[in-house]
Amino acid sequence: MSEFDRFSLNVATTKYWPLDELVPGCVAAGIGGIGLWRNEVTQYGLDRCAELVQGAGLRVTSLCRGGFFTAHGWLDDNCHAIEEAATLGAPVLVLVSGGLPPGSRDLDAARERVAAAVETLVPYAIDAGVTLGIEPLHPMYAADRCVVSTLGQALDIAERFPARAVGVVLDTYHLWWDDQVWAQIKRAGADGRIACFQVADWVTPLPAGVLLGRGLPGEGCVELRRFREAVDAAGYTGPVEVEVFHPDVWARPGAQVLAASIAGYLEYVA
Amino acid sequence: MSEFDRFSLNVATTKYWPLDELVPGCVAAGIGGIGLWRNEVTQYGLDRCAELVQGAGLRVTSLCRGGFFTAHGWLDDNCHAIEEAATLGAPVLVLVSGGLPPGSRDLDAARERVAAAVETLVPYAIDAGVTLGIEPLHPMYAADRCVVSTLGQALDIAERFPARAVGVVLDTYHLWWDDQVWAQIKRAGADGRIACFQVADWVTPLPAGVLLGRGLPGEGCVELRRFREAVDAAGYTGPVEVEVFHPDVWARPGAQVLAASIAGYLEYVA
Repeated sequence: MSEFDRFSLNVATTKYWPLDELVPGCVAAGIGGIGLWRNEVTQYGLDRCAELVQGAGLRVTSLCRGGFFTAHGWLDDNCHAIEEAATLGAPVLVLVSGGLPPGSRDLDAARERVAAAVETLVPYAIDAGVTLGIEPLHPMYAADRCVVSTLGQALDIAERFPARAVGVVLDTYHLWWDDQVWAQIKRAGADGRIACFQVADWVTPLPAGVLLGRGLPGEGCVELRRFREAVDAAGYTGPVEVEVFHPDVWARPGAQVLAASIAGYLEYVA
Repeated sequence: MSEFDRFSLNVATTKYWPLDELVPGCVAAGIGGIGLWRNEVTQYGLDRCAELVQGAGLRVTSLCRGGFFTAHGWLDDNCHAIEEAATLGAPVLVLVSGGLPPGSRDLDAARERVAAAVETLVPYAIDAGVTLGIEPLHPMYAADRCVVSTLGQALDIAERFPARAVGVVLDTYHLWWDDQVWAQIKRAGADGRIACFQVADWVTPLPAGVLLGRGLPGEGCVELRRFREAVDAAGYTGPVEVEVFHPDVWARPGAQVLAASIAGYLEYVA
């Protein structure tokens, strides 16, 4: 896979670019793949989406997202998500594991519940040939979005299961502050656990709710190239997804954001 | 020290309560001490402040803050801060170490610079009989406020120096998400490094800038009592400061906030 072919656009970066414009736009740009989100896939129609993307010769590099194991109906929902990933040809379903249950302060128990939920899903994932990718989210999301806060914790859970069934998703936005992350990337790679690698930059000040403040590669302070080199050195040969959530980015035309993402990737990551 | 006597009000919790009302208010409430901030001390006058607090029989449990080692004139400023702590009888100067230098992505170098700055300050601290308390701040502040993000990192730096000169400040708001923190508290206690213990609760959603979103004890999801028990088990016998920054808390009368802080402390921490 060439450096350029390795680039993947996570469609959350170009939120308002309709899929039937985005896919030809990505083909025109000559990139290798796209990362999809379930809400958009459902809106467009699962089979129709699979045809559109595969027909265009693009790979689906990941599907976001399963997880949220504290929600009512999580098992059905995650089983559907696994099937959708298989239909789309996505090798990995990204898991955002959910925060503390309402009113709870028991973080240890919440983390154990994630491991139990993943265990429940493993047979479905193996049947479907889809890897569950546990994504550690930045510690600022531990209460309300994801109790798995470090790569070390994600691996502690993933390693209980076969590597083809459970891996980890590395996103620079979530991991950049962690002085342990370099050792943990080695650990993840040695065991074949790196299911996907995503890049976004860290910019301050953070916005209210801290969800929509990511920067395109190069706009912030993350050592993006060091991360890419570290995952490569750990044996990862898969795609590099640019995944940025920011209203200012979303307000720009999709093709322009794709071009900026590619430029930032080539200058700061590749 | 009784549980009640151990309680200390960090004056940042009651931002708009003037010192000459706050001090008698704390005496009337029967608490043991207060944590001071330099800007308020300077505004009131250093010697006048020391007389006020000591005359009232209150202990000064900490002085916030030294640090910000990336700022111009950091050495002079930190030397002044150490002298101020000595004058006030504060056993510890809290260090907020500063973020990345403008335009830099080199987090490792920034962390090493903190260690070098602390090394420079150690002789001044020993002369003054003041302990430098390295405070790890939540990873969401790593870029712009403090590159020391975990208790483990803070101890890695502190342990290079004598324990009477350099310790760590534990604040539940910054540390609650970390699955390694319990082991690190033991490590800190075994070496006599716990210079101060501060409590605040974690509430979501976070506000823009993420600085002013703390909750009073019991308002959020932190296992505050578990933390207090852990520092006690590690050998810490010092004060427990309530330190909350929130506009809604600041808008209430100081005496009312003090009462609420004491109530929250007794119910959720002590």
